[in-house]
Amino acid sequence: MQIGLVGLGKMGFNLALNLHRNGFEVIANDVNPDFVTQIAQNGISTASSLEDLTKQLVGRKVIWLMVPAGEIVDAVIEQLIPLLNPSDIIIDGGNSFFKDSLRRYTHLKDKGIDFLDCGTSGGTSGALQGACTMIGGDTDVFKYVEEVFQKISIQNGYLHTGRAGSGHFTKMVHNGIEYGMMQAIAEGFEVFERSQFDIDFQKTAELFNHGSVVRGWLMELTANAFAKDPQLDAIKGVMHSSGEGKWTLETALDMGVPTPVIALSVMMRYRSQMEDTFSGKVVAALRNEFGGHAVEKK
Amino acid sequence: MQIGLVGLGKMGFNLALNLHRNGFEVIANDVNPDFVTQIAQNGISTASSLEDLTKQLVGRKVIWLMVPAGEIVDAVIEQLIPLLNPSDIIIDGGNSFFKDSLRRYTHLKDKGIDFLDCGTSGGTSGALQGACTMIGGDTDVFKYVEEVFQKISIQNGYLHTGRAGSGHFTKMVHNGIEYGMMQAIAEGFEVFERSQFDIDFQKTAELFNHGSVVRGWLMELTANAFAKDPQLDAIKGVMHSSGEGKWTLETALDMGVPTPVIALSVMMRYRSQMEDTFSGKVVAALRNEFGGHAVEKK
Repeated sequence: MQIGLVGLGKMGFNLALNLHRNGFEVIANDVNPDFVTQIAQNGISTASSLEDLTKQLVGRKVIWLMVPAGEIVDAVIEQLIPLLNPSDIIIDGGNSFFKDSLRRYTHLKDKGIDFLDCGTSGGTSGALQGACTMIGGDTDVFKYVEEVFQKISIQNGYLHTGRAGSGHFTKMVHNGIEYGMMQAIAEGFEVFERSQFDIDFQKTAELFNHGSVVRGWLMELTANAFAKDPQLDAIKGVMHSSGEGKWTLETALDMGVPTPVIALSVMMRYRSQMEDTFSGKVVAALRNEFGGHAVEKK
Repeated sequence: MQIGLVGLGKMGFNLALNLHRNGFEVIANDVNPDFVTQIAQNGISTASSLEDLTKQLVGRKVIWLMVPAGEIVDAVIEQLIPLLNPSDIIIDGGNSFFKDSLRRYTHLKDKGIDFLDCGTSGGTSGALQGACTMIGGDTDVFKYVEEVFQKISIQNGYLHTGRAGSGHFTKMVHNGIEYGMMQAIAEGFEVFERSQFDIDFQKTAELFNHGSVVRGWLMELTANAFAKDPQLDAIKGVMHSSGEGKWTLETALDMGVPTPVIALSVMMRYRSQMEDTFSGKVVAALRNEFGGHAVEKK
C-alpha cells in the first residue's frame, strides 16, 4: 500500500522509517526541504509539493498528516482537498484537539473525502519502533487502512476507539493522565531532594521499576534521566506543554467533571514558566498591609 | 537462616510463603490463632507467642515484623525487647511512618538491638512472588541480612536506601507518587465515562499498556479491574487510605515543598468518604444569601 506522508518532524520522520520498514511505499513531503533530503537518504520516495505527492499516489489515496496541531492541519487539508478524489483518505496522526477533528471529519465528508483521527503515543522511539495508536472514524474506512495501524504499532498497540473524534479524544485524555502521572513522580522526587536523607535518585527510580506499584515507562524514563545527570544540574525546571493537558482540563470543566490532579499538573507547568508571579506580589503586599510582614524588595 | 515472622495478614502470610520457598527457616506468629493454623498447613513452623518465637531462634535472632503501622509496632517491639539479646535484629517490613522508625531505631540502639526499616512494595502478589524492598539502617546490619532482601525481592528489586528511616521514607514517597498516579488515571477514566464517546474502558486501558507513554503496572491493574466489571457497577467510589499519602503531604508541608498533585489526591480520598459536605452547605447558603440562588433542600 502507498502512503503519502506529510510532515517529517521528530514524529513524522520516524514514522516514515517505520512505515518503510514495514513494506509500505512511503512518499514523503515536508515544507522544510532539508527533512525531505534526509528522508530520501533513507531510501524513501519524496515529493516536492502536495501536488507532486498526490500525483504519485495511485488509486484510493491514503495521506497521513504528521504536522503540528492547529491551523497548519487546516491549511494542509485545504491544500489537499482539490488534489483528492472522493473516498480518498486523510489520516491526522498528530495531536489535534478532538473538536477540530470532528469539524474536519464533517468538512471532508461534505467533499466525499474520508478522514480518520489517529492519536499516536509512545514518543519518538514508539513512532520508530512501534507506536500505540488510537483511531477514530468510520469503521469501513478504518478497516481499509487497518493494516497500516497494525504494522506501525507494537503488538496489540492499536485500537479503533469509535466514531470520528474519539481517537484524538482518547489521546488527549491519555496525555492528561500523563501530565498527572509525571507531576506525581516529579513531586515525589522533589520530596526526596529536599529531605534529610541522601537518596540516590537514579538507584531509587531503578528500584521503583523492579517490582514496585509505580513501575512503568515513565519511571524508566525517570531512571534514564538521572543516569545521564544524577541531580539534573544541567537543566532548568521549566515545563512546557503542547496543549493536551489544557484540553483535557477544559473538556472536564465543560462536562462538570472534577479533575483536580490534571488541573494542578497543567497549572504547575504554567507556574514553572514564570520567573515571578503577580499573585505572589499581591499576597506579599496584603500580608504587609494587615500584619506588617516584611516583603522582599526588587 | 532462621527468620521469626510476626504478623500473618495479607502481606505477612504471603511473605512467609515467599521466605519459606526461598529456603529460610520461618517461625511464624500472629495474634490470630487461625492465621497461625493456616500457615502451619503450608509447612511453616509456628510459635504460639513472642516468647515461644524467640526461644525457637538460635544465635543472632532476626525478627521480621509485618503488623499494622502505629501503636501495634511499638507494642510488639516492647514485648520483644526483654526476649532479645544485644545485636539481635528487628526488621519492620510494614508501612510505618519514617519518623517512628527513626525513633524506634534510637530506642532499640540504646538496648543494643539492631533495627532495619524496610518499605515493601508490589502488593500481595509481590509479597508472594517477589517484592520491591527499600531498606534503611546501619550498613553492617543490612549486609548481615542482605540475602533475605535479595531472595524475597524480584531481581534488582531491593536497595539499601541509606541510614535508619530512609527505607520507610522512600516507601512513603513511593506511595505518595502512587496516590497521584492513581488519581490521574482515575480522572482520565472519569472524563472518558462522562464524554460524548462510547469509550470501551477495558480495551482502552489494555491499549494504553501496549506502547503508550502511560503504560505501567497501575494501568495493567486498571485493565484487570475493567475486565472483571466493565463499568465498575459493583463497587462504590469510596477511596480509603492507610496513611502514606497523608504523611508524604505532611512531610512536604514541613519542608515547604509544593506537592499539589499529591495533596489533591489525598483530599479527593477524604472527599470520597463523605456523603455530603459541610463546605458544600456553606457555599450553597452563601450563593442563596447574595444571589437568591436555589439551594437543594434535605
